[in-house]
Amino acid sequence: MKIAVVGLGLIGGSMALVLRQKGFASRIFGVDSQETHAQKALELGIVDEITDLDNAIANSDIVILSAPVSVCSALLPRVLDQVTRQVVFDTGSTKTSLLEAVKGHVNRGRYIATHPMWGTEFSGPEAATTDAFEGRANVICNASESDKDALETVEQLYTLLGMYNVYMEGKDHDVHVAYVSHISHITSFALANTVLEKEKEENAIFELASAGFESTVRLAKSSPAMWMPIFKQNKENVLDVLNEHISQLRKFKSCIEKENWAYLSELMENANKIKDVLDRK
Amino acid sequence: MKIAVVGLGLIGGSMALVLRQKGFASRIFGVDSQETHAQKALELGIVDEITDLDNAIANSDIVILSAPVSVCSALLPRVLDQVTRQVVFDTGSTKTSLLEAVKGHVNRGRYIATHPMWGTEFSGPEAATTDAFEGRANVICNASESDKDALETVEQLYTLLGMYNVYMEGKDHDVHVAYVSHISHITSFALANTVLEKEKEENAIFELASAGFESTVRLAKSSPAMWMPIFKQNKENVLDVLNEHISQLRKFKSCIEKENWAYLSELMENANKIKDVLDRK
Repeated sequence: MKIAVVGLGLIGGSMALVLRQKGFASRIFGVDSQETHAQKALELGIVDEITDLDNAIANSDIVILSAPVSVCSALLPRVLDQVTRQVVFDTGSTKTSLLEAVKGHVNRGRYIATHPMWGTEFSGPEAATTDAFEGRANVICNASESDKDALETVEQLYTLLGMYNVYMEGKDHDVHVAYVSHISHITSFALANTVLEKEKEENAIFELASAGFESTVRLAKSSPAMWMPIFKQNKENVLDVLNEHISQLRKFKSCIEKENWAYLSELMENANKIKDVLDRK
Repeated sequence: MKIAVVGLGLIGGSMALVLRQKGFASRIFGVDSQETHAQKALELGIVDEITDLDNAIANSDIVILSAPVSVCSALLPRVLDQVTRQVVFDTGSTKTSLLEAVKGHVNRGRYIATHPMWGTEFSGPEAATTDAFEGRANVICNASESDKDALETVEQLYTLLGMYNVYMEGKDHDVHVAYVSHISHITSFALANTVLEKEKEENAIFELASAGFESTVRLAKSSPAMWMPIFKQNKENVLDVLNEHISQLRKFKSCIEKENWAYLSELMENANKIKDVLDRK
Protein backbone atom coordinates (compact mmCIF):
# COMPACT_ATOMS: atom_id res chain seq x y z
CA MET A 1 0.00 0.00 0.00
CA LYS A 2 1.11 3.55 -0.69
CA ILE A 3 0.62 5.76 2.33
CA ALA A 4 0.50 9.53 2.77
CA VAL A 5 1.26 10.78 6.28
CA VAL A 6 0.16 14.37 6.87
CA GLY A 7 1.82 15.61 10.06
CA LEU A 8 5.14 13.92 10.81
CA GLY A 9 5.08 14.00 14.60
CA LEU A 10 4.95 11.34 17.31
CA ILE A 11 1.81 9.58 16.05
CA GLY A 12 2.22 9.96 12.28
CA GLY A 13 5.92 9.16 12.49
CA SER A 14 5.43 6.10 14.68
CA MET A 15 2.63 4.84 12.44
CA ALA A 16 4.85 5.19 9.36
CA LEU A 17 7.69 3.30 11.08
CA VAL A 18 5.49 0.41 12.23
CA LEU A 19 3.54 0.12 8.94
CA ARG A 20 6.80 -0.13 7.03
CA GLN A 21 8.30 -2.59 9.52
CA LYS A 22 5.23 -4.84 9.20
CA GLY A 23 5.43 -4.76 5.40
CA PHE A 24 2.09 -2.95 5.05
CA ALA A 25 3.52 0.23 3.50
CA SER A 26 5.36 -0.07 0.20
CA ARG A 27 5.96 3.67 -0.18
CA ILE A 28 5.40 6.51 2.29
CA PHE A 29 4.83 10.13 1.27
CA GLY A 30 5.37 12.71 3.99
CA VAL A 31 3.63 16.09 4.25
CA ASP A 32 4.43 18.64 6.95
CA SER A 33 4.09 22.42 7.05
CA GLN A 34 7.23 22.60 9.17
CA GLU A 35 10.23 22.24 6.86
CA THR A 36 12.50 21.08 9.72
CA HIS A 37 10.07 18.30 10.66
CA ALA A 38 9.80 17.19 7.04
CA GLN A 39 13.58 17.07 6.55
CA LYS A 40 14.09 15.27 9.86
CA ALA A 41 11.50 12.62 8.96
CA LEU A 42 13.24 12.03 5.62
CA GLU A 43 16.62 11.85 7.31
CA LEU A 44 15.36 9.33 9.88
CA GLY A 45 13.89 7.12 7.13
CA ILE A 46 10.35 7.62 8.44
CA VAL A 47 9.16 8.63 4.94
CA ASP A 48 10.49 7.90 1.44
CA GLU A 49 9.64 11.25 -0.02
CA ILE A 50 8.49 14.71 1.07
CA THR A 51 5.82 16.20 -1.14
CA ASP A 52 2.83 18.55 -1.06
CA LEU A 53 -0.63 17.53 0.10
CA ASP A 54 -2.26 17.29 -3.35
CA ASN A 55 0.51 15.15 -4.79
CA ALA A 56 0.54 12.92 -1.68
CA ILE A 57 -3.23 12.31 -1.97
CA ALA A 58 -3.06 11.61 -5.71
CA ASN A 59 -0.33 9.00 -5.30
CA SER A 60 -1.58 7.16 -2.20
CA ASP A 61 -4.02 4.41 -1.27
CA ILE A 62 -4.34 5.60 2.32
CA VAL A 63 -4.09 9.16 3.68
CA ILE A 64 -3.32 9.50 7.39
CA LEU A 65 -4.01 12.88 9.00
CA SER A 66 -1.87 13.15 12.12
CA ALA A 67 -1.45 16.90 12.45
CA PRO A 68 -2.86 18.93 15.43
CA VAL A 69 -6.67 18.62 15.54
CA SER A 70 -7.20 22.23 14.40
CA VAL A 71 -5.15 21.56 11.26
CA CYS A 72 -6.97 18.28 10.60
CA SER A 73 -10.38 19.97 10.89
CA ALA A 74 -9.29 22.54 8.31
CA LEU A 75 -7.64 20.04 5.95
CA LEU A 76 -10.10 17.16 5.98
CA PRO A 77 -12.80 18.67 3.69
CA ARG A 78 -10.09 19.67 1.21
CA VAL A 79 -8.62 16.14 1.32
CA LEU A 80 -12.03 14.56 0.74
CA ASP A 81 -12.59 16.89 -2.24
CA GLN A 82 -9.67 15.16 -3.93
CA VAL A 83 -10.14 11.48 -3.08
CA THR A 84 -11.65 8.94 -5.41
CA ARG A 85 -10.81 5.42 -4.28
CA GLN A 86 -8.48 6.44 -1.38
CA VAL A 87 -9.09 5.74 2.30
CA VAL A 88 -8.61 8.69 4.67
CA PHE A 89 -8.37 8.58 8.45
CA ASP A 90 -7.22 10.92 11.20
CA THR A 91 -5.68 10.11 14.57
CA GLY A 92 -6.81 13.16 16.56
CA SER A 93 -7.83 13.38 20.22
CA THR A 94 -11.18 15.08 19.51
CA LYS A 95 -13.78 13.84 17.05
CA THR A 96 -16.95 15.99 17.06
CA SER A 97 -15.40 18.93 15.24
CA LEU A 98 -13.94 16.73 12.47
CA LEU A 99 -17.15 14.77 12.02
CA GLU A 100 -19.08 18.02 11.72
CA ALA A 101 -16.59 19.38 9.18
CA VAL A 102 -17.32 16.60 6.67
CA LYS A 103 -20.99 15.88 7.40
CA GLY A 104 -22.78 15.42 4.08
CA HIS A 105 -19.58 15.64 2.03
CA VAL A 106 -19.98 13.70 -1.22
CA ASN A 107 -16.93 11.58 -0.32
CA ARG A 108 -17.76 11.25 3.41
CA GLY A 109 -17.69 7.46 3.11
CA ARG A 110 -13.96 7.41 2.37
CA TYR A 111 -13.20 8.93 5.78
CA ILE A 112 -12.85 7.01 9.07
CA ALA A 113 -12.62 8.93 12.34
CA THR A 114 -10.11 7.17 14.63
CA HIS A 115 -8.23 7.83 17.85
CA PRO A 116 -5.46 5.44 18.83
CA MET A 117 -5.17 5.66 22.65
CA TRP A 118 -1.40 5.85 22.76
CA GLY A 119 1.03 8.69 23.14
CA THR A 120 3.93 10.02 25.15
CA GLU A 121 4.87 13.48 26.39
CA PHE A 122 7.32 13.83 23.49
CA SER A 123 6.63 15.31 20.07
CA GLY A 124 8.12 15.73 16.60
CA PRO A 125 9.58 13.11 14.23
CA GLU A 126 12.49 12.39 16.61
CA ALA A 127 9.94 11.06 19.11
CA ALA A 128 8.57 8.48 16.64
CA THR A 129 9.13 4.89 17.72
CA THR A 130 8.36 1.36 16.55
CA ASP A 131 7.56 0.57 20.17
CA ALA A 132 4.12 2.22 19.90
CA PHE A 133 0.40 1.37 19.96
CA GLU A 134 0.72 -2.31 20.98
CA GLY A 135 -2.02 -3.59 23.27
CA ARG A 136 -3.93 -0.29 23.44
CA ALA A 137 -7.44 0.57 22.25
CA ASN A 138 -8.16 2.39 19.00
CA VAL A 139 -11.48 4.23 18.97
CA ILE A 140 -13.43 4.32 15.70
CA CYS A 141 -16.25 6.87 15.69
CA ASN A 142 -19.49 6.93 13.69
CA ALA A 143 -18.37 3.81 11.81
CA SER A 144 -21.73 3.51 10.02
CA GLU A 145 -21.01 6.74 8.12
CA SER A 146 -17.93 5.20 6.46
CA ASP A 147 -17.82 2.94 3.40
CA LYS A 148 -17.52 -0.72 4.33
CA ASP A 149 -14.30 -1.35 2.37
CA ALA A 150 -12.64 1.78 3.75
CA LEU A 151 -13.62 0.85 7.31
CA GLU A 152 -12.26 -2.68 6.89
CA THR A 153 -8.93 -1.37 5.60
CA VAL A 154 -8.53 0.88 8.64
CA GLU A 155 -9.65 -1.84 11.07
CA GLN A 156 -7.02 -4.18 9.59
CA LEU A 157 -4.36 -1.48 9.76
CA TYR A 158 -4.96 -0.93 13.49
CA THR A 159 -5.06 -4.65 14.16
CA LEU A 160 -1.68 -4.89 12.44
CA LEU A 161 -0.41 -2.17 14.82
CA GLY A 162 -1.37 -4.49 17.70
CA MET A 163 -4.38 -2.41 18.77
CA TYR A 164 -7.97 -3.50 19.37
CA ASN A 165 -10.81 -1.49 17.88
CA VAL A 166 -13.55 0.03 20.05
CA TYR A 167 -16.61 1.68 18.49
CA MET A 168 -18.56 4.69 19.67
CA GLU A 169 -20.22 7.91 18.56
CA GLY A 170 -17.95 10.97 18.26
CA LYS A 171 -19.92 12.85 20.91
CA ASP A 172 -19.44 10.04 23.46
CA HIS A 173 -15.76 9.76 22.57
CA ASP A 174 -15.21 13.44 23.34
CA VAL A 175 -16.86 13.08 26.76
CA HIS A 176 -14.81 10.00 27.69
CA VAL A 177 -11.43 11.39 26.59
CA ALA A 178 -12.05 14.52 28.65
CA TYR A 179 -11.96 12.14 31.66
CA VAL A 180 -9.31 9.62 30.73
CA SER A 181 -6.88 11.90 28.97
CA HIS A 182 -7.52 15.66 28.74
CA ILE A 183 -7.95 16.30 32.48
CA SER A 184 -4.71 14.37 33.23
CA HIS A 185 -2.84 16.79 31.02
CA ILE A 186 -4.37 19.85 32.67
CA THR A 187 -3.62 18.60 36.20
CA SER A 188 -0.08 17.82 35.15
CA PHE A 189 0.48 21.24 33.53
CA ALA A 190 -1.02 22.94 36.60
CA LEU A 191 1.07 20.84 38.99
CA ALA A 192 4.26 21.82 37.17
CA ASN A 193 3.26 25.49 37.38
CA THR A 194 2.44 25.11 41.09
CA VAL A 195 5.88 23.74 41.84
CA LEU A 196 7.70 26.18 39.55
CA GLU A 197 5.80 29.09 41.10
CA LYS A 198 6.35 28.24 44.74
CA GLU A 199 9.44 26.10 44.95
CA LYS A 200 12.11 28.64 44.28
CA GLU A 201 14.86 26.24 45.21
CA GLU A 202 15.02 24.34 41.96
CA ASN A 203 17.84 22.22 43.36
CA ALA A 204 15.38 20.84 45.89
CA ILE A 205 13.01 19.77 43.11
CA PHE A 206 15.52 17.81 41.16
CA GLU A 207 17.29 16.34 44.16
CA LEU A 208 14.16 15.28 46.01
CA ALA A 209 11.77 14.56 43.16
CA SER A 210 10.70 10.97 43.60
CA ALA A 211 9.21 8.63 41.03
CA GLY A 212 5.77 9.70 42.25
CA PHE A 213 6.36 13.33 41.38
CA GLU A 214 7.85 12.47 38.02
CA SER A 215 4.91 10.34 37.01
CA THR A 216 2.28 12.94 37.96
CA VAL A 217 4.17 15.78 36.29
CA ARG A 218 5.39 13.87 33.21
CA LEU A 219 2.56 15.07 30.96
CA ALA A 220 3.49 18.70 31.71
CA LYS A 221 6.25 18.26 29.13
CA SER A 222 3.59 17.82 26.42
CA SER A 223 3.43 20.11 23.40
CA PRO A 224 1.21 23.22 23.76
CA ALA A 225 0.87 23.29 19.93
CA MET A 226 -0.85 19.93 20.08
CA TRP A 227 -2.89 20.45 23.26
CA MET A 228 -4.22 23.98 22.84
CA PRO A 229 -6.43 22.99 19.85
CA ILE A 230 -7.65 19.90 21.74
CA PHE A 231 -8.82 21.97 24.73
CA LYS A 232 -10.36 24.45 22.29
CA GLN A 233 -12.31 21.80 20.37
CA ASN A 234 -13.39 19.92 23.49
CA LYS A 235 -14.05 23.04 25.55
CA GLU A 236 -17.40 22.11 27.13
CA ASN A 237 -16.43 18.59 28.18
CA VAL A 238 -13.05 19.71 29.50
CA LEU A 239 -14.63 22.51 31.54
CA ASP A 240 -17.16 20.09 32.97
CA VAL A 241 -14.43 17.72 34.18
CA LEU A 242 -12.17 20.53 35.33
CA ASN A 243 -14.96 21.97 37.50
CA GLU A 244 -15.51 18.58 39.07
CA HIS A 245 -11.78 18.15 39.65
CA ILE A 246 -11.45 21.53 41.37
CA SER A 247 -14.42 20.65 43.56
CA GLN A 248 -12.79 17.30 44.48
CA LEU A 249 -9.56 19.11 45.40
CA ARG A 250 -11.55 21.53 47.56
CA LYS A 251 -12.90 18.55 49.50
CA PHE A 252 -9.32 17.52 50.32
CA LYS A 253 -8.50 21.11 51.25
CA SER A 254 -11.53 21.42 53.50
CA CYS A 255 -10.78 18.12 55.30
CA ILE A 256 -7.21 19.16 56.02
CA GLU A 257 -8.19 22.69 57.08
CA LYS A 258 -10.92 21.45 59.41
CA GLU A 259 -8.84 18.46 60.55
CA ASN A 260 -11.62 16.12 59.50
CA TRP A 261 -9.25 13.15 59.28
CA ALA A 262 -11.98 10.54 59.10
CA TYR A 263 -13.48 12.11 55.98
CA LEU A 264 -10.00 12.57 54.49
CA SER A 265 -9.39 8.82 54.87
CA GLU A 266 -12.77 8.15 53.31
CA LEU A 267 -11.88 10.30 50.28
CA MET A 268 -8.63 8.38 49.83
CA GLU A 269 -10.32 5.01 50.27
CA ASN A 270 -12.78 5.97 47.56
CA ALA A 271 -9.90 6.98 45.28
CA ASN A 272 -8.31 3.56 45.86
CA LYS A 273 -11.22 2.08 43.85
CA ILE A 274 -9.53 3.29 40.67
CA LYS A 275 -7.25 0.28 41.17
CA ASP A 276 -10.10 -2.15 40.48
CA VAL A 277 -11.03 -0.28 37.33
CA LEU A 278 -7.48 -0.10 35.98
CA ASP A 279 -6.57 -3.65 36.96
CA ARG A 280 -9.36 -5.01 34.75
CA LYS A 281 -7.20 -4.09 31.79
CA MET B 1 24.90 -6.06 62.15
CA LYS B 2 21.70 -7.03 63.94
CA ILE B 3 18.77 -5.00 62.70
CA ALA B 4 15.31 -4.34 64.13
CA VAL B 5 12.70 -3.28 61.58
CA VAL B 6 9.61 -1.72 63.16
CA GLY B 7 6.85 -1.60 60.54
CA LEU B 8 7.14 -4.34 57.92
CA GLY B 9 5.68 -2.53 54.92
CA LEU B 10 7.05 -1.40 51.58
CA ILE B 11 9.98 0.63 52.96
CA GLY B 12 10.92 -1.44 56.02
CA GLY B 13 10.50 -4.68 54.10
CA SER B 14 12.53 -3.52 51.10
CA MET B 15 15.28 -2.21 53.38
CA ALA B 16 15.47 -5.56 55.19
CA LEU B 17 15.69 -7.42 51.88
CA VAL B 18 18.46 -5.22 50.45
CA LEU B 19 20.47 -5.05 53.69
CA ARG B 20 20.48 -8.82 53.89
CA GLN B 21 21.31 -9.22 50.19
CA LYS B 22 24.28 -6.85 50.56
CA GLY B 23 25.57 -8.78 53.58
CA PHE B 24 25.04 -5.83 55.95
CA ALA B 25 22.40 -7.52 58.13
CA SER B 26 23.37 -10.70 59.98
CA ARG B 27 20.03 -11.06 61.77
CA ILE B 28 16.75 -9.18 61.28
CA PHE B 29 14.09 -8.80 63.98
CA GLY B 30 10.64 -7.79 62.77
CA VAL B 31 8.05 -5.83 64.75
CA ASP B 32 4.58 -5.06 63.45
CA SER B 33 1.29 -4.37 65.22
CA GLN B 34 -0.56 -6.16 62.42
CA GLU B 35 -0.23 -9.89 62.98
CA THR B 36 -0.92 -10.67 59.30
CA HIS B 37 1.90 -8.34 58.18
CA ALA B 38 4.29 -9.89 60.70
CA GLN B 39 3.50 -13.46 59.61
CA LYS B 40 3.71 -12.54 55.93
CA ALA B 41 7.14 -10.91 56.43
CA LEU B 42 8.39 -14.02 58.19
CA GLU B 43 6.96 -16.27 55.48
CA LEU B 44 8.60 -14.19 52.74
CA GLY B 45 11.98 -14.38 54.49
CA ILE B 46 12.09 -10.60 54.99
CA VAL B 47 12.82 -11.08 58.71
CA ASP B 48 14.38 -13.94 60.70
CA GLU B 49 12.20 -13.53 63.73
CA ILE B 50 9.06 -11.71 64.87
CA THR B 51 9.32 -10.23 68.34
CA ASP B 52 8.07 -7.33 70.46
CA LEU B 53 9.53 -3.83 70.35
CA ASP B 54 11.48 -4.01 73.64
CA ASN B 55 13.11 -7.33 72.77
CA ALA B 56 13.93 -6.13 69.25
CA ILE B 57 15.66 -3.00 70.60
CA ALA B 58 17.61 -4.92 73.23
CA ASN B 59 18.99 -7.40 70.68
CA SER B 60 19.84 -5.03 67.82
CA ASP B 61 22.62 -2.69 66.74
CA ILE B 62 20.32 -0.65 64.49
CA VAL B 63 16.61 0.08 64.94
CA ILE B 64 14.73 1.16 61.82
CA LEU B 65 11.34 2.82 62.32
CA SER B 66 9.33 2.39 59.13
CA ALA B 67 5.77 2.53 60.44
CA PRO B 68 3.30 5.32 59.50
CA VAL B 69 4.62 8.71 60.70
CA SER B 70 2.00 8.99 63.46
CA VAL B 71 3.16 5.65 64.92
CA CYS B 72 6.83 6.68 64.63
CA SER B 73 6.20 9.97 66.44
CA ALA B 74 4.56 8.07 69.28
CA LEU B 75 7.17 5.28 69.43
CA LEU B 76 10.41 7.20 69.01
CA PRO B 77 10.69 8.66 72.54
CA ARG B 78 9.97 5.21 74.00
CA VAL B 79 12.61 3.65 71.74
CA LEU B 80 15.19 6.24 72.75
CA ASP B 81 14.40 5.57 76.42
CA GLN B 82 15.73 2.07 75.91
CA VAL B 83 18.79 2.53 73.72
CA THR B 84 22.34 2.56 74.98
CA ARG B 85 24.79 2.00 72.13
CA GLN B 86 22.14 1.39 69.40
CA VAL B 87 21.57 3.55 66.36
CA VAL B 88 17.95 4.50 65.62
CA PHE B 89 16.59 6.02 62.44
CA ASP B 90 13.18 6.48 60.86
CA THR B 91 12.20 6.61 57.18
CA GLY B 92 9.09 8.81 57.41
CA SER B 93 7.84 11.41 54.94
CA THR B 94 7.57 14.19 57.56
CA LYS B 95 10.32 15.26 59.93
CA THR B 96 9.31 18.24 62.09
CA SER B 97 6.95 16.30 64.31
CA LEU B 98 9.50 13.54 65.01
CA LEU B 99 12.32 16.00 65.67
CA GLU B 100 10.08 17.85 68.12
CA ALA B 101 9.11 14.61 69.86
CA VAL B 102 12.72 13.84 70.89
CA LYS B 103 14.12 17.35 71.34
CA GLY B 104 16.25 17.38 74.48
CA HIS B 105 15.93 13.62 75.04
CA VAL B 106 18.95 12.28 76.90
CA ASN B 107 19.63 9.81 74.07
CA ARG B 108 18.77 12.23 71.24
CA GLY B 109 22.23 11.69 69.73
CA ARG B 110 21.49 8.04 68.91
CA TYR B 111 18.65 9.08 66.54
CA ILE B 112 19.04 10.12 62.90
CA ALA B 113 16.04 11.60 61.05
CA THR B 114 16.06 10.27 57.48
CA HIS B 115 13.74 10.16 54.48
CA PRO B 116 14.70 7.94 51.55
CA MET B 117 13.00 9.48 48.48
CA TRP B 118 11.74 6.23 47.06
CA GLY B 119 8.37 4.51 47.14
CA THR B 120 5.63 3.00 45.05
CA GLU B 121 1.84 3.08 45.28
CA PHE B 122 1.90 -0.39 46.86
CA SER B 123 2.06 -1.24 50.55
CA GLY B 124 2.54 -4.12 52.97
CA PRO B 125 5.32 -6.75 53.13
CA GLU B 126 4.25 -8.28 49.78
CA ALA B 127 5.23 -4.99 48.13
CA ALA B 128 8.81 -5.17 49.44
CA THR B 129 11.41 -5.48 46.71
CA THR B 130 15.20 -5.65 46.33
CA ASP B 131 14.79 -3.36 43.34
CA ALA B 132 14.41 -0.32 45.63
CA PHE B 133 16.21 2.92 46.59
CA GLU B 134 18.99 2.77 43.94
CA GLY B 135 20.05 6.13 42.53
CA ARG B 136 17.62 8.19 44.63
CA ALA B 137 18.30 10.82 47.30
CA ASN B 138 18.10 10.13 51.02
CA VAL B 139 17.44 13.21 53.13
CA ILE B 140 19.13 13.45 56.54
CA CYS B 141 17.67 16.16 58.76
CA ASN B 142 19.28 18.09 61.63
CA ALA B 143 22.42 15.96 61.29
CA SER B 144 24.31 18.06 63.85
CA GLU B 145 21.95 16.85 66.60
CA SER B 146 23.05 13.23 66.07
CA ASP B 147 26.16 11.50 67.47
CA LYS B 148 28.97 11.34 64.93
CA ASP B 149 29.32 7.54 65.02
CA ALA B 150 25.56 6.98 64.72
CA LEU B 151 25.36 9.41 61.80
CA GLU B 152 28.23 7.68 60.00
CA THR B 153 26.60 4.28 60.40
CA VAL B 154 23.37 5.53 58.82
CA GLU B 155 25.21 7.38 56.03
CA GLN B 156 27.06 4.18 55.16
CA LEU B 157 23.86 2.15 55.27
CA TYR B 158 22.15 4.46 52.76
CA THR B 159 25.23 4.52 50.52
CA LEU B 160 25.11 0.72 50.54
CA LEU B 161 21.47 0.93 49.40
CA GLY B 162 22.72 2.89 46.38
CA MET B 163 21.35 6.24 47.59
CA TYR B 164 23.11 9.58 47.94
CA ASN B 165 22.71 11.60 51.14
CA VAL B 166 21.34 15.16 51.10
CA TYR B 167 21.33 17.30 54.25
CA MET B 168 18.79 19.85 55.42
CA GLU B 169 16.81 21.09 58.41
CA GLY B 170 13.59 19.22 59.20
CA LYS B 171 11.50 22.35 58.67
CA ASP B 172 12.90 22.85 55.15
CA HIS B 173 12.43 19.18 54.36
CA ASP B 174 8.74 19.38 55.23
CA VAL B 175 8.24 22.37 52.91
CA HIS B 176 10.05 20.71 49.99
CA VAL B 177 8.27 17.36 50.26
CA ALA B 178 4.90 19.14 50.24
CA TYR B 179 5.87 20.21 46.70
CA VAL B 180 7.69 17.23 45.30
CA SER B 181 5.64 14.47 46.88
CA HIS B 182 2.59 15.28 49.02
CA ILE B 183 0.74 17.44 46.46
CA SER B 184 1.25 14.76 43.77
CA HIS B 185 -0.59 12.31 45.97
CA ILE B 186 -3.47 14.70 46.62
CA THR B 187 -3.90 15.55 42.92
CA SER B 188 -3.84 11.87 42.08
CA PHE B 189 -6.40 10.93 44.76
CA ALA B 190 -8.63 13.83 43.63
CA LEU B 191 -8.26 12.90 39.96
CA ALA B 192 -9.36 9.34 40.68
CA ASN B 193 -12.40 10.65 42.57
CA THR B 194 -13.21 13.04 39.71
CA VAL B 195 -13.26 10.24 37.20
CA LEU B 196 -15.08 7.79 39.48
CA GLU B 197 -17.69 10.45 40.30
CA LYS B 198 -18.47 11.55 36.77
CA GLU B 199 -17.53 8.73 34.46
CA LYS B 200 -20.30 6.28 35.17
CA GLU B 201 -19.29 4.05 32.30
CA GLU B 202 -16.43 2.24 33.97
CA ASN B 203 -15.88 0.21 30.82
CA ALA B 204 -14.90 3.41 29.06
CA ILE B 205 -12.26 4.13 31.70
CA PHE B 206 -10.52 0.83 31.44
CA GLU B 207 -10.83 0.52 27.69
CA LEU B 208 -9.72 4.05 26.87
CA ALA B 209 -7.33 4.80 29.72
CA SER B 210 -4.02 5.63 28.09
CA ALA B 211 -0.57 5.53 29.64
CA GLY B 212 -0.98 9.24 30.45
CA PHE B 213 -4.03 8.65 32.61
CA GLU B 214 -2.44 5.70 34.36
CA SER B 215 0.66 7.64 35.28
CA THR B 216 -1.24 10.64 36.70
CA VAL B 217 -3.65 8.46 38.65
CA ARG B 218 -1.18 5.80 39.79
CA LEU B 219 -0.59 7.35 43.22
CA ALA B 220 -4.34 7.21 43.93
CA LYS B 221 -3.77 3.54 44.76
CA SER B 222 -1.63 4.60 47.75
CA SER B 223 -2.47 3.56 51.29
CA PRO B 224 -4.73 5.96 53.26
CA ALA B 225 -3.28 4.53 56.50
CA MET B 226 0.14 5.80 55.47
CA TRP B 227 -0.94 9.11 53.91
CA MET B 228 -3.52 10.42 56.36
CA PRO B 229 -0.90 10.91 59.15
CA ILE B 230 1.48 12.57 56.65
CA PHE B 231 -1.13 15.16 55.63
CA LYS B 232 -1.97 15.63 59.32
CA GLN B 233 1.63 16.22 60.37
CA ASN B 234 2.45 18.44 57.39
CA LYS B 235 -0.89 20.25 57.42
CA GLU B 236 0.29 23.86 56.96
CA ASN B 237 2.73 23.17 54.14
CA VAL B 238 0.31 20.88 52.33
CA LEU B 239 -2.49 23.48 52.55
CA ASP B 240 -0.17 26.15 51.25
CA VAL B 241 0.71 24.09 48.16
CA LEU B 242 -2.85 22.87 47.69
CA ASN B 243 -4.15 26.46 47.63
CA GLU B 244 -1.56 27.37 45.02
CA HIS B 245 -2.46 24.30 42.97
CA ILE B 246 -6.18 25.11 43.00
CA SER B 247 -5.38 28.66 41.93
CA GLN B 248 -3.23 27.34 39.06
CA LEU B 249 -6.08 25.07 37.94
CA ARG B 250 -8.46 28.04 38.05
CA LYS B 251 -6.18 29.85 35.61
CA PHE B 252 -6.59 26.97 33.14
CA LYS B 253 -10.33 27.00 33.74
CA SER B 254 -10.60 30.74 33.19
CA CYS B 255 -8.56 30.60 29.95
CA ILE B 256 -10.75 27.88 28.51
CA GLU B 257 -13.98 29.55 29.65
CA LYS B 258 -12.97 32.91 28.20
CA GLU B 259 -11.35 31.33 25.15
CA ASN B 260 -8.10 33.09 25.94
CA TRP B 261 -6.07 30.60 23.89
CA ALA B 262 -2.92 32.70 23.85
CA TYR B 263 -2.71 32.73 27.64
CA LEU B 264 -3.56 29.02 27.76
CA SER B 265 -0.57 28.32 25.50
CA GLU B 266 1.58 30.52 27.73
CA LEU B 267 0.54 28.54 30.82
CA MET B 268 1.48 25.29 29.08
CA GLU B 269 4.77 26.68 27.81
CA ASN B 270 5.63 27.70 31.34
CA ALA B 271 4.78 24.20 32.59
CA ASN B 272 7.12 22.75 29.94
CA LYS B 273 10.00 24.26 31.97
CA ILE B 274 9.64 21.42 34.46
CA LYS B 275 11.47 19.37 31.83
CA ASP B 276 14.68 21.34 32.32
CA VAL B 277 14.48 20.89 36.06
CA LEU B 278 13.81 17.15 35.91
CA ASP B 279 16.32 16.48 33.15
CA ARG B 280 19.13 17.82 35.33
CA LYS B 281 18.82 14.63 37.34
